[in-house]
Amino acid sequence: MYNKILVPTDGSEGSKIALEHAKGLAEKYSSEIHLLYVADVRTHNTGEIIPNLVAELEKIGEESIESMKESLEGVEGIKDSVIKGIPHREINDYADEKDIDLIVMGTHGRTGLDRILLGSVTEKVVRTSNVPVMTVGRED
Amino acid sequence: MYNKILVPTDGSEGSKIALEHAKGLAEKYSSEIHLLYVADVRTHNTGEIIPNLVAELEKIGEESIESMKESLEGVEGIKDSVIKGIPHREINDYADEKDIDLIVMGTHGRTGLDRILLGSVTEKVVRTSNVPVMTVGRED
Repeated sequence: MYNKILVPTDGSEGSKIALEHAKGLAEKYSSEIHLLYVADVRTHNTGEIIPNLVAELEKIGEESIESMKESLEGVEGIKDSVIKGIPHREINDYADEKDIDLIVMGTHGRTGLDRILLGSVTEKVVRTSNVPVMTVGRED
Repeated sequence: MYNKILVPTDGSEGSKIALEHAKGLAEKYSSEIHLLYVADVRTHNTGEIIPNLVAELEKIGEESIESMKESLEGVEGIKDSVIKGIPHREINDYADEKDIDLIVMGTHGRTGLDRILLGSVTEKVVRTSNVPVMTVGRED
């Protein structure tokens, strides 16, 4: 049922909690886990592209994915990608291209405001995804 | 991991697609499935309570749950409730009270506008839930 599970990460604590659920499901369904970091090519204030920032984000993405891979010890079939783009679009495109069966995402829910505001990327993916999306966040 | 799965229903096609995922997970995790219909005590335009409408909704809820139970043949431990209230609040309260591990909900995604607008109850639950929420909808 869930042969391929996509876990988009933004390097946050929320992504790690999502990963625990994805790992549990992968063990049960013998799923591949696809880790994806999208370096956002937009600056949030101006819409301009700032090359250095994107390069910095890519570095964060690579580190985040390395750390996630460590906590996936025992899971067969881990794929990882760091790409540039507009996160929710790239996530949906990736899911379509790779025939992903389930997306598992954090909602960043930790502190005050974050508990109210669902991560905006997660929200956009929930709204637009062609595949089921599991959102994980406020528990623990 | 997912001992108790809550499937809120509003009688729509989206709820049925959600139920298929819940059933698959329940078979894998030997989970209980909790079916919940909340008859919305508000009218959406005025905020007034219209008793007949609520009674009518409760009837719809009971029919919807009966039909869902038929498609759950083979699943052990099905619970069902039809209650009155404000849907997303009752769903969250139910999840807290019954120690639900996962909520599976439809996003109503079928026709044009519905494909864009996530069901507003689902959206509120995703934003406010203390437990993971799987949203299912636009596929197939």
